[in-house]
Amino acid sequence: MMKTVEFFFDFGSPTTYFAYTQLPKIAAECGAEIVWRPMLLGGVFKATGNTSPVTVPAKGRWMFEDMARWARRYGVPFVMNPHFPINTLVLMRGATGLQMRQPDAFARYCDVVFRAMWLLQRNLGDAVVLASTLADAGVNADAFAALVADAEVKARLAATTDEAVARGVFGAPTFFVGDQMFFGQDRLEFVREALRA
Amino acid sequence: MMKTVEFFFDFGSPTTYFAYTQLPKIAAECGAEIVWRPMLLGGVFKATGNTSPVTVPAKGRWMFEDMARWARRYGVPFVMNPHFPINTLVLMRGATGLQMRQPDAFARYCDVVFRAMWLLQRNLGDAVVLASTLADAGVNADAFAALVADAEVKARLAATTDEAVARGVFGAPTFFVGDQMFFGQDRLEFVREALRA
Repeated sequence: MMKTVEFFFDFGSPTTYFAYTQLPKIAAECGAEIVWRPMLLGGVFKATGNTSPVTVPAKGRWMFEDMARWARRYGVPFVMNPHFPINTLVLMRGATGLQMRQPDAFARYCDVVFRAMWLLQRNLGDAVVLASTLADAGVNADAFAALVADAEVKARLAATTDEAVARGVFGAPTFFVGDQMFFGQDRLEFVREALRA
Repeated sequence: MMKTVEFFFDFGSPTTYFAYTQLPKIAAECGAEIVWRPMLLGGVFKATGNTSPVTVPAKGRWMFEDMARWARRYGVPFVMNPHFPINTLVLMRGATGLQMRQPDAFARYCDVVFRAMWLLQRNLGDAVVLASTLADAGVNADAFAALVADAEVKARLAATTDEAVARGVFGAPTFFVGDQMFFGQDRLEFVREALRA
């Protein structure tokens, strides 16, 4: 049986973008498969009483320096999005819906959305900007609108978010290897060790 | 001129204990000197609006697993203190006072207090337990009582805490290499890089 690592993610989290850029390499090295688990970070925060680190201004200022250090370490381009925080409900419903109904489109959609958010500084809360980003991803805007309004898609995202909270998730990114939970892109070395064990 | 790394610490933080066990090796490798900066973490939290991670229960539960992983990685003994959180005002005044008035006693005091807190599960908020811990550190209990009641000592700890906040500190441990700030024992690799640069 192939080893797996579950990746609970939300496009709105910049540190999740870093995890997104690194996890595929780690999984490949370890012969493991990534199980993509789109969740709604805002829902996780509400359920757990957690808040974004940027709600403490001094922590937010430091985090931007810290993220620049990680970008250099990983050799990954990263540009803070001036529209942060962006409500990701539609984007995460889109990820969930594509995963359910058009799985072949899921990977490209994730790639385009992560890059639009954390490289291209796009305001994905704006309908026109979102439409042009969907076009980049090869996703039809009308089909997408229907997908994110689909009751089963909405319910699936809510259920994944509830499951995450029930399993101990309080933020993003969060990884599971079996029942071992790892929070934060800065714990990817522990994820690697768990996959190798 | 010798390179220096400032170490803003409070005995009450378990991740600061990990930093305490690792920083001397890193400093030695880099030919750098540690500048010990005892501060009051509770004061930092109050000033910045930050809170202990354990105020989010799910985060607290994960942190204990995470700390066990770091203890294994570092090969450092660590036992969670059942009396956590312990008010560290007297302990930090003690560190400050010894640094000012009996610098030769400072290192042993820090070592004994960190181990009492994060290995021996001692309730250092209890006067009898504190007295026995001071004895282990070779510090006279009456002299210590006078030291922590000394207005200059109190003022120095408050000033260091204020300085930390003014420079952007929001938690512990925090390190500075020049004006570069690093938060968390999990950023010691970045501290090492900064010292080598």
